[in-house]
Amino acid sequence: MTLIDRRNHHLFQPLLYEVATAGLSPSEIAFPIRSILRKHRNIRVLLADVTGVDVESGSVSLDDGTALSYDYLVVATGATHSYFGHDGWTRDAPGLKTIEDAIEIRRRILLRFEEAERSIDADERRRLLTFVVIGGGPTGVELAGAIAGIATRTMASDFRSIDPGAARIILVEGSDRLLGSFSPRLSLRAKRQLEKLGVDVRTATMVTDIDASGVETSMGRIDSRCVLWAAGVAASPLGAGLGAETDRTGRVTVGPDLSVAGHPEVFVIGDLAHAVDRGRDVPGVAPAAMQQGTHVAEVILADLGGRRRPAFHYSDKGSLAQVGRTAAVARIGRFEFSGFVAWMLWWSIHIAYLIGFRSRVLVLFGWGWQWLTVQRAARLITRPWSPSSGSGR
Amino acid sequence: MTLIDRRNHHLFQPLLYEVATAGLSPSEIAFPIRSILRKHRNIRVLLADVTGVDVESGSVSLDDGTALSYDYLVVATGATHSYFGHDGWTRDAPGLKTIEDAIEIRRRILLRFEEAERSIDADERRRLLTFVVIGGGPTGVELAGAIAGIATRTMASDFRSIDPGAARIILVEGSDRLLGSFSPRLSLRAKRQLEKLGVDVRTATMVTDIDASGVETSMGRIDSRCVLWAAGVAASPLGAGLGAETDRTGRVTVGPDLSVAGHPEVFVIGDLAHAVDRGRDVPGVAPAAMQQGTHVAEVILADLGGRRRPAFHYSDKGSLAQVGRTAAVARIGRFEFSGFVAWMLWWSIHIAYLIGFRSRVLVLFGWGWQWLTVQRAARLITRPWSPSSGSGR
Repeated sequence: MTLIDRRNHHLFQPLLYEVATAGLSPSEIAFPIRSILRKHRNIRVLLADVTGVDVESGSVSLDDGTALSYDYLVVATGATHSYFGHDGWTRDAPGLKTIEDAIEIRRRILLRFEEAERSIDADERRRLLTFVVIGGGPTGVELAGAIAGIATRTMASDFRSIDPGAARIILVEGSDRLLGSFSPRLSLRAKRQLEKLGVDVRTATMVTDIDASGVETSMGRIDSRCVLWAAGVAASPLGAGLGAETDRTGRVTVGPDLSVAGHPEVFVIGDLAHAVDRGRDVPGVAPAAMQQGTHVAEVILADLGGRRRPAFHYSDKGSLAQVGRTAAVARIGRFEFSGFVAWMLWWSIHIAYLIGFRSRVLVLFGWGWQWLTVQRAARLITRPWSPSSGSGR
Repeated sequence: MTLIDRRNHHLFQPLLYEVATAGLSPSEIAFPIRSILRKHRNIRVLLADVTGVDVESGSVSLDDGTALSYDYLVVATGATHSYFGHDGWTRDAPGLKTIEDAIEIRRRILLRFEEAERSIDADERRRLLTFVVIGGGPTGVELAGAIAGIATRTMASDFRSIDPGAARIILVEGSDRLLGSFSPRLSLRAKRQLEKLGVDVRTATMVTDIDASGVETSMGRIDSRCVLWAAGVAASPLGAGLGAETDRTGRVTVGPDLSVAGHPEVFVIGDLAHAVDRGRDVPGVAPAAMQQGTHVAEVILADLGGRRRPAFHYSDKGSLAQVGRTAAVARIGRFEFSGFVAWMLWWSIHIAYLIGFRSRVLVLFGWGWQWLTVQRAARLITRPWSPSSGSGR
């Protein structure tokens, strides 16, 4: 069995916003894949970029020009940001998918406060202390809430010329409510919780342009030196190379057994798959991806045992989104929670799912500490290394 | 009072090799300066690059074109790598001074094992698994010992095609012994301890050239895809701009009160200063720098109180160097230790000096865990962020 990934680490995505907002260190939520699978002697891990899949001959080509043939292939390369055709916005409004994204966003947020402390131009200072988060899904809500916490709590006594608490955090959402996948009632709760934290929530506001000094929206311009993108998602480009049908966002249509049409040996799971269960689209969330992983294993075992392939059924355990330091919204089955109870639930579940005892203890400790002291542990501004600038700078 | 630094963090240098070898996270040894000094309301912290000092008019110019005037100036900008005139070697043999350097070195070490696992060319595999550390001072000894630990312990069961334990770690030193600042007896102990860890120690070996596939030395060529520089040190270029006398390595000559000749209001301390105490050069080590910091405060207080300036006396508490996972060498006054006792001493002192309770607990825990499990916590390979490659990669 061979596992190919272009990163050496498995990333626990739900806590990535904590890295972006200096609360956790990258290594607390990312684990070497090789080390996770160390005891499975029949799994080989390859750090490589897959450049193409030839489903006819049954082989995967890698970036070094070599190819691997397969009997079964499982493609789970997920999703990336979508700027809805405006790829030029990436530079001025980075999204949050990788550790590198998180470190870059952390750098920008922290640097803006530093620059504001130095600036003597009142307008520029206002631009520097205006943070715009685009997209009112869970990531946007989490980012906006965490930045508000940094400004009003973490940084409270750290500056002499500026009042970090005066920073404006603006959350822009195109539709008429936050957290579209939750009920309207919970969306409203999340909005109120954010507003209590000082976040300026602007729904029904479309972004029309982004540049280095701000955002143009359907409701007017917002001047800002720190714009973050949490809006669109597009499927990994590898999906298109499978020769199967894809939907509008590039996701690959799969059958009830999660294989692609005409190729029962090729499975697509996770955010890259467009799966339908009993007439409903399976959502692009981690629990669905995990259930699909287990299901593919069952399908392959059924093949090997000469049994009929079972159909995938998604078991919806609910959804959760954190809103700042003490609140969250949650739906568990038909029950809805918000506030502190939902927040306790959020953290219990996320820590329970973190891989490995060590990280659980570290995150719990680091995070309990942060909660108590309102300090954030990973307030580092780092730069890319280069032969000329790396040394001694 | 204004503190100017071009980094937002204070770095605990002695543990930087642990970040470079994936044992600790950057945030465990780097702390926001602003946050350290939060309670000192009379200190202003500026994140800025000092571009020049005008000692005649008494002002410091910053990268944004502004200038700050001063009554007293303390310059403590330290040292950087010196490649002895071969600055082109930086790319193929990075040195270890900053967090960025450490992350880059970590990336190279981890990536070489990954590339070796993929390689099918026996020669290339040997080059990939040969690690050369140039310089037998404390940093070189610590790096070589830690890489040996990664190869033989941490990675032991993680690969399928290669045996990480077969990696060669070669420590190259130009003089005839390691750790020149220790006694010949302790140098020999350190050499033996390293050899027990599997490190190939080559003293009296001069490096004549470095390229992307290895090192030319006075004793022949060593093929390697991972060469690390721990050899030369040069003073920060800011020293030369003070108009004072500098020594061969660029350090500024200071008087007994640590001020520069002709400018009693300008002090130079730390690695940038060439100070002499009772006929002996004060060494470029952290304890000396800390004592000098306190001394400058006393000198300024003496000025303000109209008293005579006291002369600086260095109190040598001893020196320590770690050698791999269970050994170290130490000199405390006239007493010398090596092996496990010295190693216990090394860790106790370094953890005691780490700033802040939080980091002490985290490092102690993280590091105890690593010691017990031989796992290393921060095995991340990350890349620089860029608008095109950052997202979704």
